[in-house]
Amino acid sequence: MPSWPVSELEQLRSVYEPLAQSVRRLIDVSIRTRADAMTVKSVIDKINGAADELASAPMRDGSFGLEHTTEGQPMVWGNVVMGVRNPVALPLDVQHEADGTVWAEFALGCAYEGPPGHVHGGVCAMLLDHILGATAHLPGKPAYTGTLTLRYLRGTRLDRPLRAHAHVDRVEGSKTFAVGHIADADGVTVEAEGVFIHPKGAR
Amino acid sequence: MPSWPVSELEQLRSVYEPLAQSVRRLIDVSIRTRADAMTVKSVIDKINGAADELASAPMRDGSFGLEHTTEGQPMVWGNVVMGVRNPVALPLDVQHEADGTVWAEFALGCAYEGPPGHVHGGVCAMLLDHILGATAHLPGKPAYTGTLTLRYLRGTRLDRPLRAHAHVDRVEGSKTFAVGHIADADGVTVEAEGVFIHPKGAR
Repeated sequence: MPSWPVSELEQLRSVYEPLAQSVRRLIDVSIRTRADAMTVKSVIDKINGAADELASAPMRDGSFGLEHTTEGQPMVWGNVVMGVRNPVALPLDVQHEADGTVWAEFALGCAYEGPPGHVHGGVCAMLLDHILGATAHLPGKPAYTGTLTLRYLRGTRLDRPLRAHAHVDRVEGSKTFAVGHIADADGVTVEAEGVFIHPKGAR
Repeated sequence: MPSWPVSELEQLRSVYEPLAQSVRRLIDVSIRTRADAMTVKSVIDKINGAADELASAPMRDGSFGLEHTTEGQPMVWGNVVMGVRNPVALPLDVQHEADGTVWAEFALGCAYEGPPGHVHGGVCAMLLDHILGATAHLPGKPAYTGTLTLRYLRGTRLDRPLRAHAHVDRVEGSKTFAVGHIADADGVTVEAEGVFIHPKGAR
């Protein structure tokens, strides 16, 4: 039996995912540091050196978009919520159950702060848009947000274990009605409902 | 006439704002790069060196929160939307008019991508939560999101001039009802309405 080949997807991921991970750590410490002016200046020089090295290599003109390996495997790696190559993304590891429910477990660090010590309400909205939308997304059949309504029950703390959950309430033609929430150990912090639409061309 | 002194606020900003700016550029090129494995490995070493240098200097235990200079000037610099020290933030430069309207002009690069070439719907939600909320925020009198409803009229493109706008529809007791939108050169892309609440203790 031949050894299982490392796919192009796995090979690319092994190169670029650690890059995003290193930038995520840098984002975190750059917000939290109290380093003095001389240290910060030295660090900026190092960061600029790293960015210059990347910028002098071949680069996409625009965003990452949706790319495929030469084997046809899709890569949505630039996505701001779930992109493994996007340092702004957690990235959210979205789990799909057989019954159509979708969930993710995560914690949000200081880069996602709004009110002191708390997750920005807009970050909760962003994550809920994504995870409710994920109930409607199908391979090759994207769904776009039509409407999204959020109810904030109480603050969501930074650096605590959180769980987001969504399921389909009903489907009417091209519209998927989804509901969901973010919860911590004490219960739900933000509720959401949304309508997600499959554009006609994609059906 | 004595020379105008550089305030502690300005001095701190001159040290740390360029750090966030350098990390923002690194985020952008790290997503767009097609550099080979050896180059990426070299870049990761540089980034880790920069992060290690910051991490070995004094650091906050948790998030940035709301800090004040020794002169009492507030710094909301860690905020994910408007924090000048947060590399995930644009940062959004929120303008307040005398009549209570709030607006900001900006463009969103590849770090904010959802559908290929387009801003993630959740990022639009995040920005609208912030800018509608800014109509209710007053110094020392914070407002928290109660509900937020978003209607997506069409996609919002990356790398285009965008404008977000919000105004107060009405105030009922501790509740501010705000409406707003994001628009590009062709008109509105996302509409929003929200209720923002001043908690009793803060009134």
